[in-house]
Amino acid sequence: MSGFVALRSCPDTRARTGRINTAHGTVDTPNFMPVGTQATVKAMTPLDLHNLGVQMLLANTYHLLLRPGPETIRELGGLHRFMGWTGSILTDSGGFQIFSLGGLSRITEEGVRFASHLDGSRIFLSPEDSIRAQQMLGSDIMMALDVLIPSTSSRKDTEAALDRTIRWADRSLAGRGDSRGQLWGIVQGGLYADLRRRCAEVLVAKPFDGYAIGGLAVGEPVEEMYRIASFTADLLPSARPRYLMGVGLPENLLDCVSFGIDLFDCVVPTRNARNGLLFTSNGKIVIKQSRYQRDSRPLDPECSCYTCRHFSRAYLRHLYMANEILASRLNTLHNLHFHLTLMQCARRAIEEARFPQFRKDFLNRYLADEIP
Amino acid sequence: MSGFVALRSCPDTRARTGRINTAHGTVDTPNFMPVGTQATVKAMTPLDLHNLGVQMLLANTYHLLLRPGPETIRELGGLHRFMGWTGSILTDSGGFQIFSLGGLSRITEEGVRFASHLDGSRIFLSPEDSIRAQQMLGSDIMMALDVLIPSTSSRKDTEAALDRTIRWADRSLAGRGDSRGQLWGIVQGGLYADLRRRCAEVLVAKPFDGYAIGGLAVGEPVEEMYRIASFTADLLPSARPRYLMGVGLPENLLDCVSFGIDLFDCVVPTRNARNGLLFTSNGKIVIKQSRYQRDSRPLDPECSCYTCRHFSRAYLRHLYMANEILASRLNTLHNLHFHLTLMQCARRAIEEARFPQFRKDFLNRYLADEIP
Repeated sequence: MSGFVALRSCPDTRARTGRINTAHGTVDTPNFMPVGTQATVKAMTPLDLHNLGVQMLLANTYHLLLRPGPETIRELGGLHRFMGWTGSILTDSGGFQIFSLGGLSRITEEGVRFASHLDGSRIFLSPEDSIRAQQMLGSDIMMALDVLIPSTSSRKDTEAALDRTIRWADRSLAGRGDSRGQLWGIVQGGLYADLRRRCAEVLVAKPFDGYAIGGLAVGEPVEEMYRIASFTADLLPSARPRYLMGVGLPENLLDCVSFGIDLFDCVVPTRNARNGLLFTSNGKIVIKQSRYQRDSRPLDPECSCYTCRHFSRAYLRHLYMANEILASRLNTLHNLHFHLTLMQCARRAIEEARFPQFRKDFLNRYLADEIP
Repeated sequence: MSGFVALRSCPDTRARTGRINTAHGTVDTPNFMPVGTQATVKAMTPLDLHNLGVQMLLANTYHLLLRPGPETIRELGGLHRFMGWTGSILTDSGGFQIFSLGGLSRITEEGVRFASHLDGSRIFLSPEDSIRAQQMLGSDIMMALDVLIPSTSSRKDTEAALDRTIRWADRSLAGRGDSRGQLWGIVQGGLYADLRRRCAEVLVAKPFDGYAIGGLAVGEPVEEMYRIASFTADLLPSARPRYLMGVGLPENLLDCVSFGIDLFDCVVPTRNARNGLLFTSNGKIVIKQSRYQRDSRPLDPECSCYTCRHFSRAYLRHLYMANEILASRLNTLHNLHFHLTLMQCARRAIEEARFPQFRKDFLNRYLADEIP
């Protein structure tokens, strides 16, 4: 039922390769999930994602709850069929967006009441409701609804949220019924190591198919994120996949892979693409800069993506300045290719027992930020 | 030099097939050019256009003049290379957008002075300047700068504009030098048949490689457009291609093909796509309508485009309502496929001497507007 196999381990770090099996295929880990918020990874067709080598994407239950609604998607054959994606899908619980986008949310023991950011309508979501919605979407991996609080919260508030998260975890497990989809739990506990430990120990004893580390990458210093991610990853069973939610940047991905994290999701490649921030092996390009106005070179001469094989920095700058849809599209293709290739290279490096060197070489060039 | 071969003629109408040869390939006529305003057909990659069977697209000299500028494009290897398009490109003269978008335009015998719609800067464009800009872009077919006036203009104003258009035609021909690109003239004369005749007779005597009918499809009743297009097409030499600028709607395309028009361009398929108006063999779909909310059928069950093969009306409605980039992309793919397939079917019908029946059958279904 867990559908996870750990494969090779890095002899020098805690990095590892593995395989998550779902009803829609295999996800080689460590891996990165593009975010398909509203049943589409912005600007990409399913064919683009397939060609990029995407194996699993994340869809946001909160957004689909509001529009078009899980009943509609179920009636249309489920999320895979609705959006034409044949690979795997992980759905979040809806919690994160309720707290970040929804208005006036109020948490009780029963669940969360919030206002839709679209029309202000009042909506109630319990842990059972979240599971039910994710089942209607038909995702391959469901996430348990957790209680999110700012990472700067007091120990007392953090502890209360954690305790409720644990009680909700039981209700999520009870609510899954005989569902085919996997259900993963989320470890909370803010920046308090001992609370993370307590949460992890309790959740690990429950029959979850995988474990996420939540409540990080929400504004805390990166050292704090690393401290807690590394500490928490160590508490999770090696026979289950480990998912760090909301991470993102290339350097963070490689560092967290070294902590033994298997799975990531983030809007960084797609949102930055639309804002004209592009990742290359030599660092980041801000495409609107006038230095690229007549630059006939590709974004990254070493990149084999469609964008780099066919278009110059000058053309991409022109599209961006002219506010053309094609800018979002070509930039997203490139950034996703960058992220997916990075993870693919990391997997190969782990398999070949040269992950630390790979990571060092990559970061040396990437962080130098010297665009030729 | 003309690069045009007329092939089959319809025995019942003036419809005909032909072939325009350019430095970048063959354009089978009658044909439709998607509009690539700012060096991109909005939301499409060159690969999409190629897969759709696009043979020639139109680029707007006005827009490229302002941004990124023809010198920049020339320096980057010309427009084909800049935008990664290996097929043919026709550039307009810039005139139409100067009159419709540019602020405070003032026409003198020398040329047009206008204000950029982007930053208000004052720009002057003579017929020679327009040719020079189009040469820097490196288009396959250049258009001569003409004087545009409202189709409701008085006979006196129309005559004056026409006379200046003729003088500018001579200056354009002189300005082309030994340019490799074709140069086409534009017949003006408003809604006055005798003025159209006068303009056509004068221009036909000049060494243009093709002829456009300009100043139509700008708000006049469709019967007036048909009357003048049909009348003017008859005045143009059969050994040269005939291009009706700015037409557009499926029914107008087939009707004007029957007048002997070979080439069209219009933003109708692309702009309507972005606004959620979609063409099908049974008429038009306004995708935001709630009747499509749970409609699992493709836009057009007979359509073989990527959109119709993979996505339901319900999904396309969802993308449109959610303001997703993919909506523009999938809708544009479909509408362009519709227009290009329509022209391809028209060509085959002419070749097989069954164009009137084809047109009648198509229009019967299409104009009934009964979407199943």
